[in-house]
Amino acid sequence: MKNKGLLIVISAPSGAGKSTLCDTIIARNRNFRRSISCTTRPPRPGEKNGRDYYFLSKQKFQSLIRSGGLVEWAVVHGNYYGTPKAPLKKNIALGRDVILNIDVQGGFSVKKHFNNSVLIFVMAPSFKDLEKRLKGRGQDSEEVIRRRLLNAKNEIACLKKYEYLVINDKLNRAALEIEAIILAEHRRVRNISNTSFKK
Amino acid sequence: MKNKGLLIVISAPSGAGKSTLCDTIIARNRNFRRSISCTTRPPRPGEKNGRDYYFLSKQKFQSLIRSGGLVEWAVVHGNYYGTPKAPLKKNIALGRDVILNIDVQGGFSVKKHFNNSVLIFVMAPSFKDLEKRLKGRGQDSEEVIRRRLLNAKNEIACLKKYEYLVINDKLNRAALEIEAIILAEHRRVRNISNTSFKK
Repeated sequence: MKNKGLLIVISAPSGAGKSTLCDTIIARNRNFRRSISCTTRPPRPGEKNGRDYYFLSKQKFQSLIRSGGLVEWAVVHGNYYGTPKAPLKKNIALGRDVILNIDVQGGFSVKKHFNNSVLIFVMAPSFKDLEKRLKGRGQDSEEVIRRRLLNAKNEIACLKKYEYLVINDKLNRAALEIEAIILAEHRRVRNISNTSFKK
Repeated sequence: MKNKGLLIVISAPSGAGKSTLCDTIIARNRNFRRSISCTTRPPRPGEKNGRDYYFLSKQKFQSLIRSGGLVEWAVVHGNYYGTPKAPLKKNIALGRDVILNIDVQGGFSVKKHFNNSVLIFVMAPSFKDLEKRLKGRGQDSEEVIRRRLLNAKNEIACLKKYEYLVINDKLNRAALEIEAIILAEHRRVRNISNTSFKK
């Protein structure tokens, strides 16, 4: 019973620890691949094309949009960001699971394009924890933190349309829970391509 | 977020190793309880009421049927067997998961009564393995084995209506997969009673 891979969408408010969590599960599972976004913003020092992003010209990006080559895309601060469809298709055909670290709206688009996708929402134990973590990072102004918390509340309002909720209280525990969800999804009858048995 | 328990229905053809599998996961998970059936057949030596079965009179059993106290029941060789509803309700209210080792028809009845139930089908790697295991047990005549294999084929035809399929190739691996499924189901948004977050 050779199965197709699954698309694992992991969404979370800023400060919930989503990136560390994704890095952790990708590092310890040979079969997981990270989805690499494409963008029109120029590479920052140290960033590598095809590893951090696919760096595209605006023309190329817009032609991808027109040809239906993107699962989802958005413009942020004047730059385009998107998820290319071709690598997703290739990886799931090879039986690999792809981890997509994207927002809730992007998650809904992935689900619409791929029925073998799984939507996981990651949250800190409470808003107080989220605020504490955002302040602890020391990256953002009070104003930015306030906006991030407001965004978090809007995203959590979409939780009912997500399939799984994992509370990132302890990193290792949360990683194990996501791995359990992925294993379970591979055992779902609807995700198994061939349920006939050899005589 | 205190969750209700789940009802975990584990169905399998004879010889797939279902009972050992259930014993294994119940022994190593404090939060799991075994569903105890009721029956009108007399206790065998060593069997204890309330541990192996609830041993009931035919009158008592029939009154349970009439009052809707059974999730499912059947008559086998002139004896009644059934799954009482009250202990299931009590355990899931206490947040415990109940493991039900019952057949496919029973599984469908459980699902109809309880929306927080999970249907897992366990199978040997192939029919050949199933046959080998049945013969290896040395319990059954050729004729009985033939009937058991025919039953297995009928049950597997219902697989599409089950939610999960676990192949019992190695006991420990299969047990881990069932535990992963149960953990994942606890993280399903629809099984979480309270998805509001503390400010």
